[in-house]
Amino acid sequence: MKSAGLSVEDLPIRDELRGVVAYGAPQLDVPVRLNTNENPHPPSEQVVAAISAELLKEIGNLQRYPDRDAQQLRGSLAEYLSRSTGVELTAANVWAANGSNEILAQLLALFAGPGRSVLGFEPTYSMHSIISRGANTYYRDVPRATDFTINTVAARAAIAEQPAAITFICSPNNPTGTAVELRTIAEIYDAVTAHELGVVVVDEAYAEFSNAPSAVELLPGRPRLIVTRTMSKAFAFAGARVGYLAADPSVVEAIGRVRLPYHLSSLTQAAARAALAHSTDLQSAVDDLKVQRDRIVVTARELGLVVADSDANFVLIGGFGDQARAWQALLDLGVLVRDVGLPGWLRVTAGTPTETDAFLTALAAVVGDLSPIAPDPLR
Amino acid sequence: MKSAGLSVEDLPIRDELRGVVAYGAPQLDVPVRLNTNENPHPPSEQVVAAISAELLKEIGNLQRYPDRDAQQLRGSLAEYLSRSTGVELTAANVWAANGSNEILAQLLALFAGPGRSVLGFEPTYSMHSIISRGANTYYRDVPRATDFTINTVAARAAIAEQPAAITFICSPNNPTGTAVELRTIAEIYDAVTAHELGVVVVDEAYAEFSNAPSAVELLPGRPRLIVTRTMSKAFAFAGARVGYLAADPSVVEAIGRVRLPYHLSSLTQAAARAALAHSTDLQSAVDDLKVQRDRIVVTARELGLVVADSDANFVLIGGFGDQARAWQALLDLGVLVRDVGLPGWLRVTAGTPTETDAFLTALAAVVGDLSPIAPDPLR
Repeated sequence: MKSAGLSVEDLPIRDELRGVVAYGAPQLDVPVRLNTNENPHPPSEQVVAAISAELLKEIGNLQRYPDRDAQQLRGSLAEYLSRSTGVELTAANVWAANGSNEILAQLLALFAGPGRSVLGFEPTYSMHSIISRGANTYYRDVPRATDFTINTVAARAAIAEQPAAITFICSPNNPTGTAVELRTIAEIYDAVTAHELGVVVVDEAYAEFSNAPSAVELLPGRPRLIVTRTMSKAFAFAGARVGYLAADPSVVEAIGRVRLPYHLSSLTQAAARAALAHSTDLQSAVDDLKVQRDRIVVTARELGLVVADSDANFVLIGGFGDQARAWQALLDLGVLVRDVGLPGWLRVTAGTPTETDAFLTALAAVVGDLSPIAPDPLR
Repeated sequence: MKSAGLSVEDLPIRDELRGVVAYGAPQLDVPVRLNTNENPHPPSEQVVAAISAELLKEIGNLQRYPDRDAQQLRGSLAEYLSRSTGVELTAANVWAANGSNEILAQLLALFAGPGRSVLGFEPTYSMHSIISRGANTYYRDVPRATDFTINTVAARAAIAEQPAAITFICSPNNPTGTAVELRTIAEIYDAVTAHELGVVVVDEAYAEFSNAPSAVELLPGRPRLIVTRTMSKAFAFAGARVGYLAADPSVVEAIGRVRLPYHLSSLTQAAARAALAHSTDLQSAVDDLKVQRDRIVVTARELGLVVADSDANFVLIGGFGDQARAWQALLDLGVLVRDVGLPGWLRVTAGTPTETDAFLTALAAVVGDLSPIAPDPLR
């Protein structure tokens, strides 16, 4: 079919979408890919076999719609969370979707939307603002302190000024790696719930890499607190797209009003159930990834760079005079990292020992070549 | 964790969502399930093996994010559509998502949203209005004629009165089974595109069961026409959740601005590719389902019921004095059909020959019991 020769801008799209660039890191075929915080360790043969067996059971029944409420999977997720946090949860506390992005979109549809605003602490996970805008919701930004912690005085002032339908707290925070203390979350929760409007969403995509306790511990007695998680990172399950949340049962029930029916395929539900039955095996690389992360922190500091403390599987490294140039120089050496748009900073994912070696070698070369390093502009 | 004892209405949800009931037919464990227009035929052993093999290749790589643009799958879908419609399409013309529901949600986000209205011809697929409201978009309803065809005079008047950001045409129409003629679609397209605003979305979820030509034939030269499809029905692939659209490449590119990144899992992409490689095998039941559908039409008319002509894999049967009572009576006989909320009417999916027999036997019993049948209130 011949194209009509139109550009996107010729179409009657929403005005807010004019000039918008599609979100997404370049998917480049590079030897060392440390740009999307993937866990580089493939599942073991045993886990592959278990997932395959579970999928096979579903394939013969694909003519039928999936369980719309993903009851079994939610039970498995609740067990996992209970085991890892010590807070007893059931399927009624848990909801699952195609990646935590869809979870966030469902929460926006439920609690925010036109005429309501949400709050985030920047720099933070860019999808919080992108999904908010996609839900026609005004996103307000409270800057973090220079050490990337949340300034609770500024947070409370922003919440007092205008109630936020959702306050997003990313912990450990992407792209800085910063864990947020539970007392900070509790303080923000109290400020938010002083208003009739507002819930607090703690995005714990990287929780399993953290030495800090999970906000799941705060859930009892806090029905307007929601903790989101993903299987993409610690579970090394990015390709399967499974995100989830834990909250009061009323929140889970409410999502039924906004979710697309049958949003989660039988295959996704089965693969995730099998993965959860092997969570220890799948997460066996987590400890080593923390070792690699800490190696990156130490080595980058030895190179004279500014490095944010990290409780995640990635590290934010600053002190590049021109981070776009440094990004390209690393890519030329076969290492793909992430330019998150913070002047002077680059984010790198902890890889396998070999990948991490490759990155650190490349980093040393680039730092040598790109000297003098400009002082970190964010500090 | 103890529930806080809240109900959904105690939460600070959007006001529009208060009192809303979650969408979805009851998922009951009944011998004969003819309520969600599933294709009752499981995939053949050969197809199961092919899908399983394709999935196995992906499981070992699930630690990586999927191809964000699903290029290979879109190529396979384009080939299938080209083959079945005679219109040459490429991956650039096709977009895929988790069911056509997600496709519709993406189109709403792109073209509609707050301050814009959309148009549908009722009775029609209820998700068109539900997803529109979920996208904070006003849904306007133009009633169909008594034979469930679209009244183009009324359609043009509604479009002239207020431009519709999206005009939804479901063909074959759910729940009536009515195919819409291409000249009707072309006429509505012309009326819509007389305005700067507006696209036409033809929902062809049931196209493979129709004897009428596909609106894909209208795509060349009509960049504001979009045809959506699903693999849930003819492909017997409801559990895998694969919907797609065909359109001008500019439309496909534009969706990049609203889609959630990595929305389609590696498993979904692989399963769908394998299914498309076996489309003839998977669709082998389509001819028989048309036979069963036609049996239902003829037999129900012989029973004195009012039956809408159907080009889909389901039949809308009217003339029940109290369709809720008839629905329950059929269920008591082990047959689950759909009460779509049209007074006097019930929708039944064409099943296997055995399932269809069971339905027709139950129907005859119910019609005998529930006499006298009230005259069809919609005619």
